[in-house]
Formats: sequence, structure tokens, C-alpha cells
Amino acid sequence: MAEEKSVNKEKPFKVRARVTIRKETNFFGPGIVELMSLIEMTGSVKEACRQMELSYTKGWFILNRAEEELGYALIHRSHGGKSGGGALLTEEGSKLLDKYNKLQAEVQEYTEQAFARLFADGV
Amino acid sequence: MAEEKSVNKEKPFKVRARVTIRKETNFFGPGIVELMSLIEMTGSVKEACRQMELSYTKGWFILNRAEEELGYALIHRSHGGKSGGGALLTEEGSKLLDKYNKLQAEVQEYTEQAFARLFADGV
Repeated sequence: MAEEKSVNKEKPFKVRARVTIRKETNFFGPGIVELMSLIEMTGSVKEACRQMELSYTKGWFILNRAEEELGYALIHRSHGGKSGGGALLTEEGSKLLDKYNKLQAEVQEYTEQAFARLFADGV
Repeated sequence: MAEEKSVNKEKPFKVRARVTIRKETNFFGPGIVELMSLIEMTGSVKEACRQMELSYTKGWFILNRAEEELGYALIHRSHGGKSGGGALLTEEGSKLLDKYNKLQAEVQEYTEQAFARLFADGV
């Protein structure tokens, strides 16, 4: 641990920007984006919640709130069947996720440049 | 409530970007910025914590952690005296706050423009 500390003292400063879309509430930001990405990867809301250490109830609360603000569905709710009833992103949900990720990436890039310029003399 | 809901449905989408500076930890973001701004306004760490509904211990934890990451003091610790021993930002703390606010404002402006461009067809 002592060695790790001395290494960390030479760590550079970094900057991060996190984008949130809001209407009535801050309904679409890093949290739901991680959740939707995990749903896409695992095909399961339950498994996505587990990986985020989020209760299933809270996960659906986040998804339902966003759908209400947006006025469209993010997740297909299938009812069992031979496929096992996996939950998947709707086309609109997938498009929103892509556009958000593009926005987030652009903002992060801009923020790093602005940080380097404004803090050229150090932090 | 029903009336409020129907009004809110016509609310536009908005976007917000929040900048955080990190080294070992995310030590400088919206939270400490609000705290330091309140310390500047009130001249008191205790009063600033109260207004943020933050415990005094937690407030100092946030300030101490940032000072450790930065390697300089953000707050003058005066020890009583006739002035009553108010806590005030150091010159370096004040400069950091100004530069952060400039960065945050630039990033917010960029984010709004990028949001309008990427979500021109709606959210």
C-alpha cells in the first residue's frame, strides 16, 4: 500500500464530464445508460441489475421513469415463451442510447481540451 | 396535480453536463464547488455545511481530501481572534474555483449546442 501511494502521487489530474438529459427529472444519464448497455449485453433486466448491484425494483423504476418522460418504450416486455422471455432494447431505445453515447463522447473530448487550455499552468 | 402533469408534458428536454476533476479520487466537482461558494459567501464552513444539509465532519472530509489531492490549502484555518475566526478561501482556492466555474460554463455551453445538433430530430 505504501508503494502504491508513492506511485499515485505522480498521477496526473484528469477531467470527466457527465451528461444528463432532463425534462421533469434528470431521467437519462450515466446510470440508466449503464443499465441499458448491460440489458443489451445480457438480454436480461434482472441480470443487468445484478451486475450493477441495483435492486430489480429500482432498475425498473429508472426505466419506467425514463419511458414516461420520453413517451416511448425503451425495453420490450416479452412474456415468457420458448426464448425464455428476455428483455431487449426497443429500436427507439437503442437509437437513444447510441445518440447519447455520441454526445457523451463529444462532450468528454471537448472537456479534456478545455481543461488542458484553462489549466495549462496546473490545477 | 393532474393540471401540473399536463403542463409538464410540454416541457422541453434539457441537457446538463457536470465536470469533475480527479486524481486518485473524484475530488473536485459540483459538490465541493457549491460548498466552497457557500464558504465564500458566508465566511463559515459550519454555515456552508448547514445550508447544504451536510454534516460538518463530511464537509471537512470533502475539503481535506481535495487539499490532499491538490497539495495546497483551499481554506484558511484561522484560530479565533477578534474577527471571530471565520473560514475563508485561500487565494489558490479562489483561483481554482474561478477556473473550474469557467470550465463548467464552457462545457455546459458546448453540451447544449451538441445536444441541439445531435438531437435535432427529437429525443
